[in-house]
Amino acid sequence: MDKTAANLSVSETAKSIDALITPALLLDRGRLERNTQRLAEHARKLGVVLRPHMKTAKSIDVARHVFPREPGPITVSTIAEAEYFAGHGFRITYAVGMSTASAIRAMKLCRRTGVDVKLLLDTVEQADALADVREATGVTPSVFIELDCDDHRGGLKSDDPKLLEVANKVVAAGANLVGVLAHAGESYSLSTPGALVKAAENERLAIVRAAEILRAHGHACPILSLGSTPTAHFAENLEGVTELRAGVYMFFDLVQHGVGVCAIDDIAISVLATVIGAKPEKGWVLVDAGWMALSRDRGTASQQFDQGYGVVCDEKGRVLEDVVVSQASQEHGTLTIRSGSGKSMPELPVGTRIRILPNHACSMAAQHDFYSVVNGENPEIEARWERIRGW
Amino acid sequence: MDKTAANLSVSETAKSIDALITPALLLDRGRLERNTQRLAEHARKLGVVLRPHMKTAKSIDVARHVFPREPGPITVSTIAEAEYFAGHGFRITYAVGMSTASAIRAMKLCRRTGVDVKLLLDTVEQADALADVREATGVTPSVFIELDCDDHRGGLKSDDPKLLEVANKVVAAGANLVGVLAHAGESYSLSTPGALVKAAENERLAIVRAAEILRAHGHACPILSLGSTPTAHFAENLEGVTELRAGVYMFFDLVQHGVGVCAIDDIAISVLATVIGAKPEKGWVLVDAGWMALSRDRGTASQQFDQGYGVVCDEKGRVLEDVVVSQASQEHGTLTIRSGSGKSMPELPVGTRIRILPNHACSMAAQHDFYSVVNGENPEIEARWERIRGW
Repeated sequence: MDKTAANLSVSETAKSIDALITPALLLDRGRLERNTQRLAEHARKLGVVLRPHMKTAKSIDVARHVFPREPGPITVSTIAEAEYFAGHGFRITYAVGMSTASAIRAMKLCRRTGVDVKLLLDTVEQADALADVREATGVTPSVFIELDCDDHRGGLKSDDPKLLEVANKVVAAGANLVGVLAHAGESYSLSTPGALVKAAENERLAIVRAAEILRAHGHACPILSLGSTPTAHFAENLEGVTELRAGVYMFFDLVQHGVGVCAIDDIAISVLATVIGAKPEKGWVLVDAGWMALSRDRGTASQQFDQGYGVVCDEKGRVLEDVVVSQASQEHGTLTIRSGSGKSMPELPVGTRIRILPNHACSMAAQHDFYSVVNGENPEIEARWERIRGW
Repeated sequence: MDKTAANLSVSETAKSIDALITPALLLDRGRLERNTQRLAEHARKLGVVLRPHMKTAKSIDVARHVFPREPGPITVSTIAEAEYFAGHGFRITYAVGMSTASAIRAMKLCRRTGVDVKLLLDTVEQADALADVREATGVTPSVFIELDCDDHRGGLKSDDPKLLEVANKVVAAGANLVGVLAHAGESYSLSTPGALVKAAENERLAIVRAAEILRAHGHACPILSLGSTPTAHFAENLEGVTELRAGVYMFFDLVQHGVGVCAIDDIAISVLATVIGAKPEKGWVLVDAGWMALSRDRGTASQQFDQGYGVVCDEKGRVLEDVVVSQASQEHGTLTIRSGSGKSMPELPVGTRIRILPNHACSMAAQHDFYSVVNGENPEIEARWERIRGW
């Protein structure tokens, strides 16, 4: 599209959300700051380094709010994120299992920028490939072994004999084994404080046990890195652990609310949309935000409260009780009253603007190229923060 | 990210898919051409203009394949698409219900480029707003009234008295009523040829009936526009209709395969991914394509064959029978054998490359910024075609 000064779209020059092209992604700065300070304080109390995951925000401006003084340690989910944040001086852990190609890109980035980028693996094949990575780039890779603490996805169990085999292969390939890394991904399916505290302790025990085994066989294993947004908030004791990771906590979302980690009023992002039609006989109101703006994520479908494609608020961000986006096509969302609530649809004439809270902040934000930053109910846009994407 | 010549990523210079950064979106040119020619031929036989929907492809290069001689009539789902394609000379119908703001942007685009952009509405409020749009832009809007032929989403029923009321309001606001437009969106939930033929005829009857009513009251109603990918292919008679719309047919996908509109071998896009791990004891193979690359779309979940997050092929695009992406997190996909198939997982060592076919082409393509264009099993990349996004 033509981006010459004469043809800047209204979204790029808007001073108020009233002038934004809809659908538009809003970010509430006050909520962002409250959420990030809350976990930073918790990590301080627990005596661990907080290494926030930037896969949700993908924005240098958000990162600068998380680290107001100077660039700190972060986690990323793509090498594109690593390249972007390394350019701003952040120290990086790439927390997705490496391929030879991704490891070579990461090590070339280290060489080019001098920034530390750590890798993750859990197989002998990946460990063996580190020798090629080292030869191709002239950089000695620093590597975590991924642990599986809850049968969620990848990683080795602490007591799997392969743990030691992989560790030895990492060393044999001439790489640095810097530690072990776990992610309690199954904690997203929990919903009581007791279960969350237990999941956090289980994550800790798994990683401490793995480090004990590695240390008993001569591996120093200096870093014990764990975390997921639910377990990070419910951990009561992180003895033996050195760092904590979490990402979605910066923005929070309806899934995290369903898990019990945040209040609805903590959710910092939303999509601003405009009413473009209605079917009063069906109780439908149509808006110009479909799955392209909201994402197809239906993470609350398996929770106690199915929030459809998102909870609806008025233009100022005040929840319209029991109004949800019950259907979404590419550029249409259908608002209805949650079935069984007994309420009736509020008046939302054509042209009315609303905000929609995300099921999943990572996937909603990924549908947009920038955040329009607001604070509370004030319609003034304080800033426009760019996001990156791709791999 | 730094995009200087010295720092071009391998994806931007790759000559072969072997050199692509994964995950990467592939587009098979031969299949694209076959799919677009098939529907063009069908439209010719039925005696209607084909107005392809560009919401799936969002690419000028794809549009040039659909219109090899000169820019033609197209449909779009966002004003950003309208701005992009108008810049290349295409004539446009914006097939989402207008807001005052979107209509003003569209008419400013008409004024700036001289390109025709038609609008869509179904309420008296939108019709009344056309006077403001005309005054704000100095352009007389051309407008369709949206019809509802199958209770799918927006639009008025042919026999709704509001149809005439809205038509009269359009004229009273000083705009041009150019016709009626229907979209048989419910056809996506069908799966037999008989039902699809019937849905197509139902769509035709609804629009012809609406035009009859409008004409009986003095509205010329020159354009009768209808279509959805399933009904467009199964329509046997379009008497009275002037134009046909469809979008996903260019690429096709597993949902359309489930509906019965295409073969698996017609699906023109896929995501290339790399194996990064495995859990042999669970029958899992992990790849570096999660929902960020595949989208969260689970459109086949309600069909006879639930394809998970996509059907898995080998690197050349040959289907690995009964291997699907059964789970997806942000940057991880979990491949498993479809439950109940009785097969066992093929050997897919770490580093193996595979292709994943989409549940929904519109949503998978939207997760990527460009297509790497290939042809059949040849690994050579013929071109890199950019996509647009946003609103």
